[in-house]
Amino acid sequence: MFFDIKSWNNKISSKEFQNNKKEIRKLLDLRNNKKLLNEFNFLNQDIKLLKKKIFDISKVFMGFEKILLLGTGGSSLGSKAILEAASNDKIIFIENIDPKYVLKKVKSVKEKKILLIIISKSGETSEVISLYQVIINYFTNIFNFKKNIIIITEEKNSTLYKLCKEKKIKFIEHNSKIGGRFSCFSETGLIPVKLAGLNSNYIKTLSDNITKECLYNNQFSLAENISILYHFIKNSKYVGHTVLSYQDSLNPLVMWYRQLWGESLGKQGKGVHIIPATGSIDQHSQLQMWLDGPDDLFYTIIIPKKRKIDFKLTDNTKFLPAYLNKKKLGDVLNTMAIATYKELVRVGKPVRVIYLDDDSLYPAIKLMSFFMLEVAFLGKYLGVNPFDQPAVEKVKLLTKKLLINNA
Amino acid sequence: MFFDIKSWNNKISSKEFQNNKKEIRKLLDLRNNKKLLNEFNFLNQDIKLLKKKIFDISKVFMGFEKILLLGTGGSSLGSKAILEAASNDKIIFIENIDPKYVLKKVKSVKEKKILLIIISKSGETSEVISLYQVIINYFTNIFNFKKNIIIITEEKNSTLYKLCKEKKIKFIEHNSKIGGRFSCFSETGLIPVKLAGLNSNYIKTLSDNITKECLYNNQFSLAENISILYHFIKNSKYVGHTVLSYQDSLNPLVMWYRQLWGESLGKQGKGVHIIPATGSIDQHSQLQMWLDGPDDLFYTIIIPKKRKIDFKLTDNTKFLPAYLNKKKLGDVLNTMAIATYKELVRVGKPVRVIYLDDDSLYPAIKLMSFFMLEVAFLGKYLGVNPFDQPAVEKVKLLTKKLLINNA
Repeated sequence: MFFDIKSWNNKISSKEFQNNKKEIRKLLDLRNNKKLLNEFNFLNQDIKLLKKKIFDISKVFMGFEKILLLGTGGSSLGSKAILEAASNDKIIFIENIDPKYVLKKVKSVKEKKILLIIISKSGETSEVISLYQVIINYFTNIFNFKKNIIIITEEKNSTLYKLCKEKKIKFIEHNSKIGGRFSCFSETGLIPVKLAGLNSNYIKTLSDNITKECLYNNQFSLAENISILYHFIKNSKYVGHTVLSYQDSLNPLVMWYRQLWGESLGKQGKGVHIIPATGSIDQHSQLQMWLDGPDDLFYTIIIPKKRKIDFKLTDNTKFLPAYLNKKKLGDVLNTMAIATYKELVRVGKPVRVIYLDDDSLYPAIKLMSFFMLEVAFLGKYLGVNPFDQPAVEKVKLLTKKLLINNA
Repeated sequence: MFFDIKSWNNKISSKEFQNNKKEIRKLLDLRNNKKLLNEFNFLNQDIKLLKKKIFDISKVFMGFEKILLLGTGGSSLGSKAILEAASNDKIIFIENIDPKYVLKKVKSVKEKKILLIIISKSGETSEVISLYQVIINYFTNIFNFKKNIIIITEEKNSTLYKLCKEKKIKFIEHNSKIGGRFSCFSETGLIPVKLAGLNSNYIKTLSDNITKECLYNNQFSLAENISILYHFIKNSKYVGHTVLSYQDSLNPLVMWYRQLWGESLGKQGKGVHIIPATGSIDQHSQLQMWLDGPDDLFYTIIIPKKRKIDFKLTDNTKFLPAYLNKKKLGDVLNTMAIATYKELVRVGKPVRVIYLDDDSLYPAIKLMSFFMLEVAFLGKYLGVNPFDQPAVEKVKLLTKKLLINNA
């Protein structure tokens, strides 16, 4: 993984940059800041215990042909990002309650040996509780409470927790101190990806190593990245952060990042919006707006340096223009990425490029580990609490009230 | 279809609103404005000829088990939006050249009777030309140039047009006066949806009727909607237009609208960004930012009044909370939509609600017809040319140059 922040760097004065960097480096040194370390619960897990828990569960629940995962927001976006980056389609995520959407999802299940994983931190998410009921009614006689259902929720007197106890469903504790969007490398994210067949131990170790390197050796210039992001957010000129990936399998990762960013930073009138994009598709959809629309966005472009699989454009019929013939498809795509980068920089836009080693799973894990630190410390430096999401609760309460009144 | 613009209306002074509306109504009356009518080519088609063309093609090319459509941006977004709204999955769209993405798409093809449709207005889109080569190399002996390939492109000396002529592939003219993003109800959009099994004649008639009603009877308050949108775009407070659909099958429609909006309005430093969203998923992802982040967005929420299919939450085990038991899933989702609307309005955000008759195809067609008029006339009133996309061409040229240098 390599970060090219030249073009970002140009947009901030050297003095402001140096000052931010110094302050942020102090924040990053959690070894000397016990108070802050206590707030960063997602970095504070008993690894041995975690690995043992995952091992124990996988002994009982491995080997299902397909997994249905009911969860929304932080309960699905992390594991979905990891699995898609690994090209693993063992889990069908049911995240929405649109009836047509649900019908399409359940109809796509052809297998009979299905595991059902239900995730809701609070144990009260209306969507998840409703989906459980729909799934139980739809797949009659497929699910045995003890044998093929797992519930991940907090240990407190909630609807889901009560269900666990009454029906003797396998209960896994959702760490109450780790919010959904920071839970992808805790039980919540790692148990689904382990049961889907990935090496959760290695993923956790890799993530922890990257985290340590970032915090204590400022790898990938974490302090510099946060310093410039802070400048962009404080500067009223910038209203959006476009995250443009030239690797299709990272689209769910970008959506996970959008939640991480939005819920962590969108507070007290602060924050800028994330604008997700896919290259090259969105060159035909958003690029006009970026190049000639309002000058109010900064950009992150993600490019895998190598492609594990590729197609060579071999043409014996002389149909292909010479500039395409014998090229690899992935190289054509990366050339488009570079052209877009150059053109954006040419017209004065701030663009950071993140080069991943390749388009497989582990570079994505590194990027997610980096992004979690970036967002959490950016929130701290901005003076907001990056770990809560108070505004969302109001809509949940109002929904309940309206449903009760309609009963 | 019903538009609730109360909360938008509150944000504009009555005087400005009335003045805009008067001017926009003059613009809308194309019968008295021949000059403008000539620019609005997407409204100017010979219907009889169009229907005959579609009929002739469907006689020869109907009955394929599966269709592969190679196209990107305006060549795919329109027909994809229509087909998804119709829950029709006969066409596999290949829009990107990421090798892993392409492999996943081609591997998903199990059928043998495949039709290949290739769409590129210019006939030179690098992605589409490359994908053609990959598909021909991958599916050896499946494609017969005369029998199961269709190319839709302009009639000019391009790579794709030359291929048509040399290999005697069925050629369909892409109207050179109708840009991709305005082509969904011309040959380009209607031929794929007809071959996928939809009633293209009815779709065209419905769209034309809505268009006429909007233009000449100001149905759905077209002038009022444009008047307020103009105010938002001119007002430097607003930087983004969030389009939040509570119907999952409209997600591609929102992406189509994003291109329509971005390429038509993002010019000369003007325009605001489209922020797409899906309810209720994004309540768990973006809502925190909307409610408590910067106050710089205006909103369109799309809600289907009825759901064609639904699940009733029936629970005999007393697991479900009373406020969910015996509810329909779609009603729970619509309640979430209303709660989100109310909460956004309560904290002062401008929100328009578009109620669709139901969650099937034809309300989506009505909405697309409305949106095309809205964006085109909004562009005209803003003083930009809504029908070109000059900035995008630069990246295309630079890509070519870089590829040639790497040859």
